[in-house]
Formats: sequence, C-alpha cells, structure tokens
Amino acid sequence: VTPLGFEKSNPPVGARPGTLAIPPGSPPPEIHLVRWSEAELHVEQVADPARLAQAEAAPGFCWVDVRGLGDEAVLREIGRIFAIHPLALEDAVNVPQRAKSEAYPGHHLVVVRVPMREPGGEVRCPQVCLLVGARSLITFQERFFGFFEPVRERLRAGIGPIRRLGPDYLAYALVDALVDRYYPVVQSLSEEVEDLEEEVSADAEPDVLNRVHTLRRRLVTVRRVGWPQREAVGALLTDHSPFISDEVRTYLRDVADHIAQVMELVDSAHELALGLVELHLSMLSHRTNEVMKVLTIMASIFIPLSFVAGVYGMNFDHMPELHHPLGYTIALGLMACIAGGMLFFFRRRGWLGRPRRRPREGGPPPG
Amino acid sequence: VTPLGFEKSNPPVGARPGTLAIPPGSPPPEIHLVRWSEAELHVEQVADPARLAQAEAAPGFCWVDVRGLGDEAVLREIGRIFAIHPLALEDAVNVPQRAKSEAYPGHHLVVVRVPMREPGGEVRCPQVCLLVGARSLITFQERFFGFFEPVRERLRAGIGPIRRLGPDYLAYALVDALVDRYYPVVQSLSEEVEDLEEEVSADAEPDVLNRVHTLRRRLVTVRRVGWPQREAVGALLTDHSPFISDEVRTYLRDVADHIAQVMELVDSAHELALGLVELHLSMLSHRTNEVMKVLTIMASIFIPLSFVAGVYGMNFDHMPELHHPLGYTIALGLMACIAGGMLFFFRRRGWLGRPRRRPREGGPPPG
Amino acid sequence: VTPLGFEKSNPPVGARPGTLAIPPGSPPPEIHLVRWSEAELHVEQVADPARLAQAEAAPGFCWVDVRGLGDEAVLREIGRIFAIHPLALEDAVNVPQRAKSEAYPGHHLVVVRVPMREPGGEVRCPQVCLLVGARSLITFQERFFGFFEPVRERLRAGIGPIRRLGPDYLAYALVDALVDRYYPVVQSLSEEVEDLEEEVSADAEPDVLNRVHTLRRRLVTVRRVGWPQREAVGALLTDHSPFISDEVRTYLRDVADHIAQVMELVDSAHELALGLVELHLSMLSHRTNEVMKVLTIMASIFIPLSFVAGVYGMNFDHMPELHHPLGYTIALGLMACIAGGMLFFFRRRGWLGRPRRRPREGGPPPG
Amino acid sequence: VTPLGFEKSNPPVGARPGTLAIPPGSPPPEIHLVRWSEAELHVEQVADPARLAQAEAAPGFCWVDVRGLGDEAVLREIGRIFAIHPLALEDAVNVPQRAKSEAYPGHHLVVVRVPMREPGGEVRCPQVCLLVGARSLITFQERFFGFFEPVRERLRAGIGPIRRLGPDYLAYALVDALVDRYYPVVQSLSEEVEDLEEEVSADAEPDVLNRVHTLRRRLVTVRRVGWPQREAVGALLTDHSPFISDEVRTYLRDVADHIAQVMELVDSAHELALGLVELHLSMLSHRTNEVMKVLTIMASIFIPLSFVAGVYGMNFDHMPELHHPLGYTIALGLMACIAGGMLFFFRRRGWLGRPRRRPREGGPPPG
Amino acid sequence: VTPLGFEKSNPPVGARPGTLAIPPGSPPPEIHLVRWSEAELHVEQVADPARLAQAEAAPGFCWVDVRGLGDEAVLREIGRIFAIHPLALEDAVNVPQRAKSEAYPGHHLVVVRVPMREPGGEVRCPQVCLLVGARSLITFQERFFGFFEPVRERLRAGIGPIRRLGPDYLAYALVDALVDRYYPVVQSLSEEVEDLEEEVSADAEPDVLNRVHTLRRRLVTVRRVGWPQREAVGALLTDHSPFISDEVRTYLRDVADHIAQVMELVDSAHELALGLVELHLSMLSHRTNEVMKVLTIMASIFIPLSFVAGVYGMNFDHMPELHHPLGYTIALGLMACIAGGMLFFFRRRGWLGRPRRRPREGGPPPG
Repeated sequence: VTPLGFEKSNPPVGARPGTLAIPPGSPPPEIHLVRWSEAELHVEQVADPARLAQAEAAPGFCWVDVRGLGDEAVLREIGRIFAIHPLALEDAVNVPQRAKSEAYPGHHLVVVRVPMREPGGEVRCPQVCLLVGARSLITFQERFFGFFEPVRERLRAGIGPIRRLGPDYLAYALVDALVDRYYPVVQSLSEEVEDLEEEVSADAEPDVLNRVHTLRRRLVTVRRVGWPQREAVGALLTDHSPFISDEVRTYLRDVADHIAQVMELVDSAHELALGLVELHLSMLSHRTNEVMKVLTIMASIFIPLSFVAGVYGMNFDHMPELHHPLGYTIALGLMACIAGGMLFFFRRRGWLGRPRRRPREGGPPPG
Repeated sequence: VTPLGFEKSNPPVGARPGTLAIPPGSPPPEIHLVRWSEAELHVEQVADPARLAQAEAAPGFCWVDVRGLGDEAVLREIGRIFAIHPLALEDAVNVPQRAKSEAYPGHHLVVVRVPMREPGGEVRCPQVCLLVGARSLITFQERFFGFFEPVRERLRAGIGPIRRLGPDYLAYALVDALVDRYYPVVQSLSEEVEDLEEEVSADAEPDVLNRVHTLRRRLVTVRRVGWPQREAVGALLTDHSPFISDEVRTYLRDVADHIAQVMELVDSAHELALGLVELHLSMLSHRTNEVMKVLTIMASIFIPLSFVAGVYGMNFDHMPELHHPLGYTIALGLMACIAGGMLFFFRRRGWLGRPRRRPREGGPPPG
Repeated sequence: VTPLGFEKSNPPVGARPGTLAIPPGSPPPEIHLVRWSEAELHVEQVADPARLAQAEAAPGFCWVDVRGLGDEAVLREIGRIFAIHPLALEDAVNVPQRAKSEAYPGHHLVVVRVPMREPGGEVRCPQVCLLVGARSLITFQERFFGFFEPVRERLRAGIGPIRRLGPDYLAYALVDALVDRYYPVVQSLSEEVEDLEEEVSADAEPDVLNRVHTLRRRLVTVRRVGWPQREAVGALLTDHSPFISDEVRTYLRDVADHIAQVMELVDSAHELALGLVELHLSMLSHRTNEVMKVLTIMASIFIPLSFVAGVYGMNFDHMPELHHPLGYTIALGLMACIAGGMLFFFRRRGWLGRPRRRPREGGPPPG
Repeated sequence: VTPLGFEKSNPPVGARPGTLAIPPGSPPPEIHLVRWSEAELHVEQVADPARLAQAEAAPGFCWVDVRGLGDEAVLREIGRIFAIHPLALEDAVNVPQRAKSEAYPGHHLVVVRVPMREPGGEVRCPQVCLLVGARSLITFQERFFGFFEPVRERLRAGIGPIRRLGPDYLAYALVDALVDRYYPVVQSLSEEVEDLEEEVSADAEPDVLNRVHTLRRRLVTVRRVGWPQREAVGALLTDHSPFISDEVRTYLRDVADHIAQVMELVDSAHELALGLVELHLSMLSHRTNEVMKVLTIMASIFIPLSFVAGVYGMNFDHMPELHHPLGYTIALGLMACIAGGMLFFFRRRGWLGRPRRRPREGGPPPG
Repeated sequence: VTPLGFEKSNPPVGARPGTLAIPPGSPPPEIHLVRWSEAELHVEQVADPARLAQAEAAPGFCWVDVRGLGDEAVLREIGRIFAIHPLALEDAVNVPQRAKSEAYPGHHLVVVRVPMREPGGEVRCPQVCLLVGARSLITFQERFFGFFEPVRERLRAGIGPIRRLGPDYLAYALVDALVDRYYPVVQSLSEEVEDLEEEVSADAEPDVLNRVHTLRRRLVTVRRVGWPQREAVGALLTDHSPFISDEVRTYLRDVADHIAQVMELVDSAHELALGLVELHLSMLSHRTNEVMKVLTIMASIFIPLSFVAGVYGMNFDHMPELHHPLGYTIALGLMACIAGGMLFFFRRRGWLGRPRRRPREGGPPPG
C-alpha cells in the first residue's frame, strides 16, 4: 500500500490534461441507466454505450450510473454523448482526486471521497464522482460499492420529492448517502480511542503506544480527506450553480451540517488521542518509579545489615564484642533496629503502602 | 454511552430526508400552549393536537411547547398544522443535531444544545429546538428539563417588553435562558481544574492524570458543542431573518456575548488542563529523583564500608593488621572517615537537606 | 476567589434582560459632574441625581463620572435622565462584562477591562464602562481606582484639543489612559518570566514549575481579557458610530496600536513560559543522570572489590593463595588494579569531570 | 550549503531595484526558440539574442526558453526586446525568489519553485520563471533540468488544444508539469516517514531520532516553499490577468487542486513525524524500565541472601546455630525460601514474563 | 535591558497625545537636507531648522534626514514647518513603536523596525520613521546607523528612476534597504540553529538547552517585530495613499515579498528550534539509559558471585564442601559459570555492544 494513502493519479508527470489513467484493477464499466419522470420510471442495464445517446435525447430525466472504470473507450464514448468537459472526465476517472465541487459548461462536477474500514482496520477512501446536468446525472464509481442502493430504492418507490425534483435532488440524495458513510467510520475510530483510553489507564505495555500511533494515522487520513469534503459541500451550497435549484440547496445545508459534525468529532478524537500519548508516558514513569522504590527499599535495608555482619566477620585478633556472651544477640538486635529504622523512614515517606495520601471527603465531580 | 458523545441521529444511512427517528426512551409529547396578546394570556395543556389548529388561526401570538418526542403521529400533525418544512421537523426531532440557525419558508429554526453535568460528572448536551414564526413560536424538547420556567414566569407576569414584542422576543428570552445554562457547567469544570491543580502540586499519584484526562475530555465535549452554538447565535444575529425584528436583534447581541465569554473560559480551562499534564510529569520526575538519591546515598556510604570489612574478613595467613592491638579500632575509624567523607560530599552536592538553594531576598510577585 | 476569574455577572439564570445586579461590596455611587465648553469648565460633586437633569438640558458638554455601583435606584435614575438603553445600563452595572464596543440608540457603549496586579500577584481585571453620547459622556466604575485622574487634570488645564472636541475625544483620552494600564501589568509578568528563566537555568526545585504554572495562568487571564479588548477597540475604530468624529478616530488608531502591542508581548511571554517547562524538565533529567552516575561509579568500583575480598574470606580447607606469604599483598594489588581499571573506564566515558567535551574556539553568537 | 536553504538573492543590501545578480555557477544562457501557429511549428536554438527581435515581430506565437543565467548582457538584451519590466527581469534572474504570481504591464510573471531530492537526500528547490505575454511566453531556468520536455513534445506533436490556445495555455501546461514535480518528492518523504515508523517501533537507537529530525527539516523546507506556491497558483486563478483567458483558467483549477493535495500530504507527513518523536521517547522509557527491572530483581534477590551468608560468617564465640548439625542445611533452605519469596513477589507484579496482561478476545479494529 | 525587549515608549500613562518623550541617550538631532530635481541635487547639513522652511517652499523635491532625537524644540520646529500631525510626530519620536503604515493629512507615515545583532548576540530593533509627503520626505532615526548610505549614494549618482520619481520612490528605496536588514539577522539566527543541531546531536550537556532557549527567545523577538512589519508593508501596498503613485506601488510588491520570505524563514527556524528541545531530551534519556546499563551489568554479575563467596565464608561446623579437596576450584568454576551466564544474557539482550541491530542494506534517503 502506498504511504499515507498517497494519492497521485496515474497520468505520468507532464501528461496533457484530459489524459485518462485507468486505475489498475478496476473492472470494466457496467452501465446502469434509470430514466424517469414524475409519473414513470425505467431501469435497465446498458451493454452498448450508444444506447445512452437515445436516453440523452429522450424527454424526462436520466441517471447513468457507471460502475467500474476499466475501459477507456467506453468512458470516452459516454463523455462524447453527454458532452462532458475533458477535465471533468479526467477528474471522474483518474481516482482518487481531492473532494471538490467545480462548475463546467454543461455540468456541475462533485467529487466525494467515501471512507471505509478495511478488514485490517486501515481506512481507505474510494472516490465517487457526480456530474449534475440539466436533465441528466452521471455517476462514476471505481467499482460497485452499494453506496447508492437505498437511494435507488427510494427513486424506484417514488417516495417524497425525489422523482419530481430532477437530477439535482437525486444528486443531493446520493451525496447525502455518501457523506453519511463517514459516520460509522468515525464512530469506530472514536470507539477505538475509548478502548485505548481504558487500556492505557490499566497498563503501560509498549505496544499500546504503537496502536495509538496507528489510530492517529487513521484519524489524520480521515481528516485529510474530510476537510476538502467539507469545503466542497460548502462550495456546492454557495456557488449558485445553474444546475442546482434553490429548493435542493435547502436540502444541501443538511449535508453540510453532517460533514461539519463528523469533522468536529474527528478533531475531538484526534485531540484525545494526543492526550493518550501523555497518559501513557506518565504511566511508564510511574512504573519506573515503582521499580526504583522496590530496589531502593531492598538495598537500603540490607546493605547496612550486611555491613554490620561484615564487621563482625573480620578476623582481628582483638575484637572484644566477639567474646561477649550476648555479643551475637546484641548484633542481631542492632540489625533489627537498623531494619526497623529504615522501614519507619520509608513508611513516613509513603513508599510502603501510601499513608501520605490525604483522605478525600467530597466526590470530585460536582453536579 | 456512545463514545465521545457520538451523535448521529437515528435515521438509517441513506434514509430520505424528513425521516423522523423517535429518540429511544423519549416520553410521549406533552403539549403546553400559551396564547397571549399584550393585554391577556391563556395557558393550557393540550391533549389533542387538533386543538392547535384553532390556536394557530386565532389572532394574537401563541407558543407551543412540545415536551417529549415519543409519538411520531402527533409530531407530524403539529408539523402539518404549522406548515413546518420536513427538514426543519427532522432537525427538531432527530436529536441531537449540531447547534444551528437556519431560515426556512415560514419559520426560522434555531437548535440549541444545553450542557448538563450528570450525576457521575459526565457532560451531556440535550437539544432544544425553536421554530420562530411570524405569530407563533414552537419549541421541541426531548423531555421536560425545566429550562423554560423562569421565562414562562416572566411571560405570565408580563414584566418588561415580553408580551408586547411577540414570538421573536420570546425566542430570544428562551435562547438566553438556555445559553445561560453553559455557565454553571463551565464553572464546575473550571473548579475541577483548580482542584486538580492543587492535587497535582501536592502529590503525583497516577490516578490524578487519569482524572485530568477525563476533565480534558469533558472540556473537549463542551468545546465541540459550544463552538457551533457560538456560530449559530452569531448567524442569528447577522442573518436578517424576516421573523426577527431589529429591536430583538439588539437583545441577541447580549446572548452572543455570553456564549463568547463562555467559550473563552472553556479555552482557558483547556489550556490550563494541558499545563497540568506537564506539572504532573515534572512532579513524577522529582519523585524518581528523590528515590534515586536515597538509594545512591545509602549505597555509596555502605558499599565501601562493607568492602573494608570484607578485606579484614579475608583469611590470608599473613595479614599484619589483624594482629595489631589497635587494628580493630583503626579499622572502625577508617570506616567512620569514609562514611563522613561521603556524607560531606553529598551535603556539598545538596542532596541532604538543601543547603545549595540560594536565599531569595525580594518577594517574587511585584505589585 | 472564583476559579479562572470566573466572570458571570449576578443576574440569576433566565432573568429578564435589563436586570441590574449590584456587585457585592460595591460602595454607593459618588457622582462627579464636569460641565465644560471650550471657554469654561465647572466641576462639582452631585449628591442628588436629579441635579443631572439640569446639566443634561444645559448647553455645552458634560461628563458624569459614577464611582461605585451600590445603589440601584440612583443608577436607574441616571439611566432615565440620559435615556440609556436598559441593556446598556445592564452592561455598565453587571460587572464584569467582556470588553466590547456596541452601538445603542442615543449612545455608543464601550466596556474596558483594566488589568491590575493584586498584592499577592494575582491579576484582577475590573471593568470601566463608557457611554458616549452627542453632548455627554457617562462613565461607570465599580469603585474609585484613580484611572481617570491624569485626563481629568488635562481637561481642567485645557491643554490640547480636549475641551474643543467634545465627549468623543474625552472618551478617547479615557480609553487611552485605561489601555495604557495594560503596560505595567504585562511588563511585570514579562519580568517574572525573565526571573524564572534564570531560576530554572540555575536549579530544578519542584516549586519552580509550580510558579511557572501560576505565571502561565496569569498570562492566560490577561490574554482572555485582552483579546476581546483588542477586538472592541478595533470595532470602535471601524464601526463608524455617529457619536465619534473622524478627527477622534485618527486618535483611536493609536489606542488600537497600543493594545495590539501589548497582546503581542503577552503572546511572546506565554510562548517563553512554555519553553521554561521544557527547560525545567531537562534540568531535572540532568540531575537524575548525575545521581545515577554517582551511584554507578561507586557501585561499579566497590562491588567487584568486595567480591575479591569475599573470595578470600571463604573457608575452604584447600586455598593455596591464602598461605602464600605475598598473598595478601597480591590481593590488595589486584583490587587496586580493578579499581584503577574502572576509574579509567569511567574517565574515558567522560563521567568523571568531563574530558569528552570538545573545546570551542569561536564565540557562538555572531555579530 | 546555506542553512535552512537560506535564500536571499545576491544583490547587496540597498542595491537599486532591477540589479541583476548572476547566480554563481549558472552556465551561460542557451536560448531555445519555438514559433508556432495552429498550423505550423518552428524550433531553433538561437545563438544571437538579436534574432529574437525578429521572432517577436513575426505573426504567430513564440516561446523563448532561456536555460542558464550566466551572462547579464544577454539577459538584458532579451529584456529589452520583449519590453520586460526591470523588476520582472530581476525576479527571473535573481534566484531563488518566493513563488509568486504578479501582473506587470505587458506580462504576467509566475515564479515556480520545483523541489528535487539531491543525492544525499537533501531537498533543493530551484526556480523556474514564466513571463506570459499576449503573443509570447518567456521562461527562465537556472540551468537545464528537463522539466519542460514532456510539454515540448506535446507542442511538437500538436495534440490537444496546445497549439490553438496560445501562450497562456502553454504556460498552464508548463506550470502543471512543474507542480507535478512535487509529487515524487513528497512521496519519497512520506515513504521515509513510514520507514522511520517501523524503525522507531522496532528499536530505540539514538540515531533514529536524528533521522526523524532531518526528515522534519526537509518537510519544513517543502512546506515553506510549497505554501507560497499554493498561494501563487490561487492568485493566478483569481487575479483576472488580461493575458490569461477564461478557457485556460478552467485548466488552472486543476493545478490549484494538485498543489493543495500535495500540501495536505506534507502536513499529514509532518504531523506523523511529530508523533514519531513521542513514540521514540516512549520506546526509550520502556527500555530504561526494562533495565531497571533486571537490576532490581537481581539485587532484591541476592542482597538479602548475601546478608544471611554474612550473618553466619560472623565470628562471635557464641553462635549456637553454627554448631547445630543441620545448621548449614537450614541456612541454605532459608536462603532458598527468601529467593523463592522474592521471585513470587516479582512474578505477581508481572516483572517476570508478563502474566498480568489480560487476554484480549475481540480483534481491536472493527470493520 | 528591559525584559522581552519591552517597548512602551516613555510618555507617562495618561499623558495627552502628542507628548514627545525624548529617548534617553539619543544624541541631539543632526539634520541632513537633500534637495533635488531630475536635473540637479544639493546636499547640505542644516544647523538651524529654520533653514528647512526655505527648502520646503522651494520647488523640487526635498529629503530631510533627522539623525538623533535629543532635542524636543528642534523636533517640534520641524513638525511645525512641514505641518506634521502631532500624533505622527509622536510616533516618529517616541521610539520604539510597532511597525505601521498610517495615513495622516499631508503625510503618509511608515514606521520600520530594523533588527540588529548586538555584540553579545542579543537582537535589538531600533526604529526608523518615514513621513512621505507630496514633495518632501522626512526620516527620523534614533541615532545614525548608516542604513541609508547605499540609497543616498544612488540618489547622488542619479542611477535609475530615483531622481525622476520623487519622494515616494525614495521612500520605497529606503524601506527596501531597511527591510533587507532582516536578512543577515535571520541568516545568523538560522546558522545558530544549524550549529545547535550539530551540538545537540553530538552531546547532551545541560547548557545546550539553555542556548536553544536563548535562541528561541531571539526568534520570538524577531517574529514579534517582523509580523507587524509584514502587515505594515502590506497595508502600504493596498491602502492607496494619495502620496504613493501606482508606479512606486509596483516596486513595493518587491518589499512585501522580501519581508514575507524573511518571516517564513523565521517560522521555519523557530519550528526547528522546537525540535531541538525534543532531540536534546532524547539524547539525555539515552545517556541515562547507558548509565543504567553499566550499573545493571556490573551489579548483576558481581552480586551473585559475592553471594557464593559469602556462602562459603560461613562458619558452620558442618559444611562438607569446605573440606573437599576440589571445593575451592569447583566454587571458582561455579562463579565463572554464573558470570558467563549473565554475560550471555546481557549480550543476547544487546546490552554489550549491539548485536541486536539489524543490518540495513539500502541507503535510507531515496533519490
């Protein structure tokens, strides 16, 4: 995997604009066409792109959903039929782009990056591109992800204003569904922050910090992808594209709100993850401190005792204590005194148990 | 509890806009209706929402206070009677939303998040939604919190311009009362910062940092909820909604000021909480340093003494000192000299008591 | 004292706007009236507020300086005479407010917070409120602080344009005098930063970091009060209040400059205080390192020696060295060799004195 | 090499504007002229600058590519022929400048800084300057870098709108090719961040942090050069220069997008590099902790044992245990008990192996 | 020296605006007058300020360079002759001010702060003030610094447009010369960052961090002075002062660019200095770790050996090993085994030399 989700699209440096770089591994395009008016709705899978020209010319609205980018000829043909600007087509195909909202003659381009957790926990952000026209909406996905199914269902069932309001409302509904995909990802990352909080508080193993670092990296990824997304939705709201009616704009405020909410959660999670690093370092210092205390207590008690024993192990001819009948008893008593004194000293310093801690009467959190 | 106060409202991802997701556990709505003009005031509890249609049609102003969101049919009926935009109704019901101020045809929507300390100290931020119309004000609360009682009392007593100025002034008074709820929460959090400052200065137990971290998380929560609140109040002030008169706008500046003041306090508290982490780590290092010093002093004094004792405990045949009549006395004297020398060395280094600290003449804090 | 200089004014939560909350301990108002025109000047202390109605009606300019906020009836009477908006009067009386500059019909309100060092070094920021009218200036102080005396003197002496230009110039002169009060406070805090820099460099007692933390808290306080002040002065400059002439606006740029300069100094001091924390932690680590080195040197030299002594203290029947005539001498020589070897090892590592440090020829700071 | 890629151009302080400072080591200029119209294209290398005057006067477009800045007379001659403003010529010649986009009468100046990795890994950012005129484009490079070759090829082949749209499109294509050069540099730096992540996780050698610091410095360099670049491209997009058509402006959005994407990656990499410092310090603390544990365990077990041995090595006349037939066995047993007790104590604390770690059932990363 | 280069000018708090506070130690003013037109140029030193009135009245341009601010009467006389606004004169004389660009009737005021390294390395920022009029330029310097000499030389020689374009171009040239003075200061500070980088990498003496802190303080000073400078030059560019022609404005963009470039370098240097603190702390931790390892190795090897020696030094009657003929040899062998085991253990942990480090094949920095 490329570092940091490194995301330069493939066209070689200096390639002319409009060069299409088929993403490696992308399946050949499957084209799903929906034609609808307020009264009726036709769904079909199109094998030959030429069929789209008819749909484009027919009255009513149409939605062309292109799943897979694996055939340049088909993509170019679609671009020709709907008169897509070469740069817009490039943005749609050369994944991943930065999230954006850009006006082109004939279309308004919206690029959405959708975060997903991969099996190993990594965050991947595939791209979906929407081209909103006057009577048509064209969407490009790298492969089929199922992001659009709930909206497709609503369109089929004709609930709400979705059939009446045309491609811009449909585009809103799709962007809304895509942006909602940020929630489960951010929620799972937030839950990991919480889990790590508990683990860091409980122990101080070195791998915990490794995992905090990994989590931070994922949060950085979501932030890097999400901020341009927030800007792009904001631009969509304020740009006054001719392809987006005021009525739909009201709905778009809702999407702007969602992405803002998500990004605030990401920022909070990021800040708490930073706090975890400090918490971990502090736990480590406490542990080192504990280890040192054990050593100090053991050594401070037994080194003086050994010294006393050493003194009476000396072989001088003239050591009167050695010959005293109570000498041994007195020596042992002296040693007990020394050990007791050291223990008293350490207890007063609060190194044995912790009698120094003051009792707390009131519960700390005030109502 | 969801992590980070995670706050995605319930509608499933991709749901159509306007879907109402009744918050689990919310009681069925209790509707309190106040109808008033400058001269008179009627208060009643409404059982049947159809009663509201009459109130809506009658002259004078009315305030519909909906407490509890537990019945979708009732909420939809209220929405129908007052012609509330589906998205506005969704924002009112699908709690919690981000704080916001948004214009809709027929109403101006204000969402306020009100922080509260829970018994365990956690910060919870229930939502209150206000819909300001030309002649009516509708408020939605998740459940009855008593936030509105002082204002309800003023309305009943008719003190000040509250009856004369209509729903926009009433909305101002309610928003003001809600924003004032930030003060006790921020004050209690600030007091906890102060308490922790004292504790961190006094001792360096590991759980102190855990508590600092918890406090930081709560401050992050208030900040995350409060910043959009500040923006929303600012937007209310500058948006020139047709439902808010210039006279009321003057009053709203006061609310904007309060929320600004609160957020500055939260930022200060957050910054000081960051400083506490460093203070704690420094206390820890000092303690480790103290422990090390005790060990070093004990070991440095007694290890050389034990060595001397060890030397004269050797069993060589030919050790003339052993047979000298004063050998033992001299050996003990030598040991005393070594111990004294080490003590002198440590005292000069300032490790025993602290004679190295220079006397300070002037008091540090200048007037 | 309330934490963080917590500053919610007294009106209970949900109180109606315009409620006056007399600050506890504020003395009863003493009213000083100055009436002047370019030619003449009358100064008097007014006992009965009704006297002010005359002054208000008379030609020429007047300055009403209200010292003390301890009597609500008098304050309300002043408000009535000069037709002060209830919210403006509330801002003037319910101290402390955030610094602000707000237009009201009939007056322009300016709230200034003035930092002072208290005897213990704490920073307190009492509030002064100015209401600039067309022909009158009203100032409210919590109690008499003497902030206005130099300006009062200039007004009396009639030096410069102070009599000619009316209440707006007088207001400028007063705001200038108040903002200048930031300088000595910021200067004393900066001096404390410098003092602590020296102390942190010299030793690493735990209380130094406590003092750095206290200083940081004071700087945070000044910053929290000063930033809104900077905004308020900027707003006064750009708001184009009808009560402030262009000529006076030129002078206000100077005040804006002063407060900007002060805030930049506060930011610098804050940043340096952050650096002190790191410097302190580094000093601590050095000290622990030193302690460790002493221990390591002592233990590494004497533990092997004791081992040698221990070997020859064993009681095996067959230990030929013990019976060698030079055994003892050789054993002592061996010990001396070991000790010398260890000393050589430590000296080469630079742990005794520091021979490893490379000589520096050139002075580090280039001209 | 100058510190921080210090980049003051050569004219002495106080020199008059327009002074040309030939960069030391820059080769004498080689001038490559391309004249083209939609139909045809002439490429030639020009020895005598006077030849350019003809090209300037002829119909059609021309591109003058100046490679090398080593001859002031030639540069001045080019400036004279194309009526380049003295300050524009100074910006072109006195490398390196900050990236910028500036309007001059007759030309629009664009300065692009192109990052490159040098053999040792250092980041160098040579400058390319473009002067877009109505019918001509003049480019200045410090020396020949080959940045322009792909575009030159496209121009020769006449693919796309490159011949039709004139010098502004050509300038766009060149700027695009130059900005694309940021990608490999940022990619290689990101890869180094990833490599260092692995190394820091695996071990804690001191040189790792040195390398993190070096990497950070390089990222700081790219950021310092890249931010003005981002601004300059943005200014080019919004400045409405008369020399840049709306059609080309559409293409420039693409370049703005690329540089924005690159800078976001640099910021992410920088943030992760900061995290590495903390990870490294934590690894170090863990290692110190491990070392301490070994010492503590060894000392805590053997020091009490030695003490017991010391006691029975004393030479008192009256020590009954010494004469007990099982004395020695019991003493050894006592020692074994002490050692076992200490081992049990350390095992319960989790210092031997780590039995304290709780088993984790669920995989941490949720899908 | 005042802390943080504390910079309140002298007028006492509350002084009336326009009060001149002669900076202590400033020499009496020396006035250098240059009168010029495109054709001719007169230079003279003026003893009597009244002479300036003639110059002011004469046709052509004039530049009055006031060196030294030590005589209030002379300064007031100059102010009177050229009709300088009292606040402008105050800004010129009461050094140091914040850098600024302000319009006054009759003049445009520009204050420039010029950083200099003092012999001890401290950064001092004296002020130069320029008053650009329609036909005159007046400059005030605290004392003669020689900043203007190169421009004075160009004016004398009449090279370029300097004589033709009048006082605004001359002002540009002077500001440019002053802003260029930032380069050597920032360059020397950057070089110190580089030097300290090397030192920190090489050793971890406590004074290194002291020097990093000092350097940081100097960078903070330059930043605090430089940011307002950048704003002031930007304001000069965009303010559309009537005294500055569009032609000169083109030149001023160059100055804005220089100061922007300088400030970016200062920011980079500051960020790297922050990194040095972490590098230093990490070096320190490594050293402590090394010290600990030596202690642990020595103690872990010799403490068990001493224990064995202690056991066989016990005086039990019944210790069969003592009487075995090979007892001593076996005991020594046992000790050798223990020592070897410990050494093997430490070697495997990589604490002796470092066999654990994995070999690295590829060079880390990719091209």
